[in-house]
This record gives sequence, C-alpha cells and structure tokens, in this order.
Amino acid sequence: MNERQQARRPGGRSARVGAEVHQAVTDLISERGYGNFTVGEVSARAGVADSSIYRRWGSLETLLTDVALTRLNAQSPMPDTGSLAGDLRTYAANVAREITGPDGLAVVRLAVALSSSGQQGLQAGDELRAVRMRQLQAMLDRARERGEHPPDAFSVLDHILAPMYIRVLFGMVPLAPDYVDGLVDRLL
Amino acid sequence: MNERQQARRPGGRSARVGAEVHQAVTDLISERGYGNFTVGEVSARAGVADSSIYRRWGSLETLLTDVALTRLNAQSPMPDTGSLAGDLRTYAANVAREITGPDGLAVVRLAVALSSSGQQGLQAGDELRAVRMRQLQAMLDRARERGEHPPDAFSVLDHILAPMYIRVLFGMVPLAPDYVDGLVDRLL
Repeated sequence: MNERQQARRPGGRSARVGAEVHQAVTDLISERGYGNFTVGEVSARAGVADSSIYRRWGSLETLLTDVALTRLNAQSPMPDTGSLAGDLRTYAANVAREITGPDGLAVVRLAVALSSSGQQGLQAGDELRAVRMRQLQAMLDRARERGEHPPDAFSVLDHILAPMYIRVLFGMVPLAPDYVDGLVDRLL
Repeated sequence: MNERQQARRPGGRSARVGAEVHQAVTDLISERGYGNFTVGEVSARAGVADSSIYRRWGSLETLLTDVALTRLNAQSPMPDTGSLAGDLRTYAANVAREITGPDGLAVVRLAVALSSSGQQGLQAGDELRAVRMRQLQAMLDRARERGEHPPDAFSVLDHILAPMYIRVLFGMVPLAPDYVDGLVDRLL
C-alpha cells in the first residue's frame, strides 16, 4: 500500500520527505553540533524510516552534503549583475547574510565539519566545495569575457569567504555591510 | 597519604597531571572531534580522578581553553625579529607549521568549536582569542614604535590567519611556504 502510494505520487512524497529530513538535519546541527547525532535521530525527528534515509542518501555524510548544497544554492545563488565589482559585492553580501542568519552557524559548521570527519566526510566536503568553486569560477569567467580582470577563485576564498567564515565561527558577528564591501574592495 | 604526597611535591604532581590531562584532551579531539567526549573520558584517559579535573579547571570548556592556549603559546611564540615583515613572516610560518602538524587540525577545531558550544564555550573562545590578539597587537605595536606602519590586528586575522585556518579546516593542505609568505606580502 505504501509502495503503491509512492508509485502514485513519488514527487510529492519525495519532496515532502526531503524537506522534513533537511530541516531535521539543520535543527540537529544547530542544537548539538555536527557529529553529535545519528541517522536514527534524523529519521525520528523527520518522522520517516531509517531505511528511507539510507535508500535515498546512502550515508549521513552524503545527507549532510546534500543539505549544505541545497541551502547554499537556495540562499546564495551566484549573481550576474553585469560587472565584476557588482557580482562580488552581491555574492559577498549574500554569503554574509546566509552565514549570519538563523541557521548560518549550522551551515558553516557543517561545511567545516565535513572536512574533519574522516574519509567519507572529506570526500563529501570536497564535493561541496568543488561545486561552489565551479559556480564562483563561472562568475569570474563571465567578468573576464567582458574584458575585466577578475581575481582567481582561491583569492576569493582566502580574502572574502575565509575572513567571513572565521568571524562567524569565532562569534565575531554581525558582519557589517561596510566590512563585507571592504573585503571585496581590498581584493579588487 | 596521597594528600601528604601532594603536600610534599605539589609542583611535580601538578605538572604531571596537567601534562597527562592536556595530552588526553588533544588525543580525544583528534580521535572524536570536539564535543564528543566528557570530563569522565578525559580523566579515564589521563588516569586521574574526575574531581582533580573539576577542582583544577572547573569545567570542560575551561580545560579546553587551557589546552589550546598552552599549545598555542608553546608552538607559536610571538616573534621579535626587528622588522614588521620578518615578524609577520615568522609568525605566519609558525602558525602554518602548528596547524598543519600532527595535532594541528585538533587545535584549529578546538579554537573554532569553543565559539560554537554555548555561552561557556563562547566565553572560553573569547578569552582564547583575546589573549592571542593582545600578543599579536604587542608585536604590531613594536613595529609602530620602530617607525614602521603595521596593519591592525584584525587585518592580520582576516588576511593571514583566516585563509590558513579555513584551508586547514577544508583539508586544503599542506600550506606551501610561498603561499604563506604571499599572504604576508599581500597584506603589507
């Protein structure tokens, strides 16, 4: 019966389960920090079966990466304002808003923790960062095609993202708009 | 009897307990990550009584801060080479060596985790950072007294420490000497 329901409206059920599981993960990270909960606790919080989580995500690390990527892509789409300065200022402001928001610390801690949780976590973290770096590189490539002279993506990581991440991780918040713009201006 | 032994050579016993407890904390952070162990597990690993830890440090957060500060001060003394560029290059190289060393990730994760573990952890993390920022400021003040024009301590945090911390946290290691020198040259 349950199987037939899934078969009849997989999209609706799949989307609902995905949203419930993602929220459960974000809540558990906020409450306990990364690494302090199990798939069983996620499934209990989300009101789904463990087997649904393992079938869909395979492992806790894969689930955590999916949650982080979904949030990053939803909250920080890469801007396309027509100028490098505009794109970087908008991108930096989006990231600042995201990582200082209600779930911001959880997202940053997740991105960091995925690197520090053994091989599976390392791979998951690498995947997460590779996706974001490709999106960032595409934004910088558009600037070069317009004849501008963009910095490389690693300089953006080192001098725009890293300072904001570390200040959030160190509790040095909020990130003032002038401070965030200053990071961009300094890099350009 | 034990009390009398303590009374006879408190320094020796105190130093031995301190070293055993510090090593136990560093090992547990490396093995499990911050927040995944208790005072009881530290005392068991170190072969001391819980009461010795509570009497001396009062809380796990205080103990973790003491461990981090001791390691930072032992491994990264603030240099005094006679020039701002020399001091910053030596300081950056010391930090890079420390955070990419065997216990490096544990130290960085500890500094980060202390900010993300509730009020007690926040205060402990603030204390840890305040001590380091004062030491850094003293180094920059010496440069100003020599007539040099040092950056402020927050710029050193944002553009030298933050990129190295984030690269370690993201598993983007080793930190090449040219990369570390480049962070300093860019800031100066």
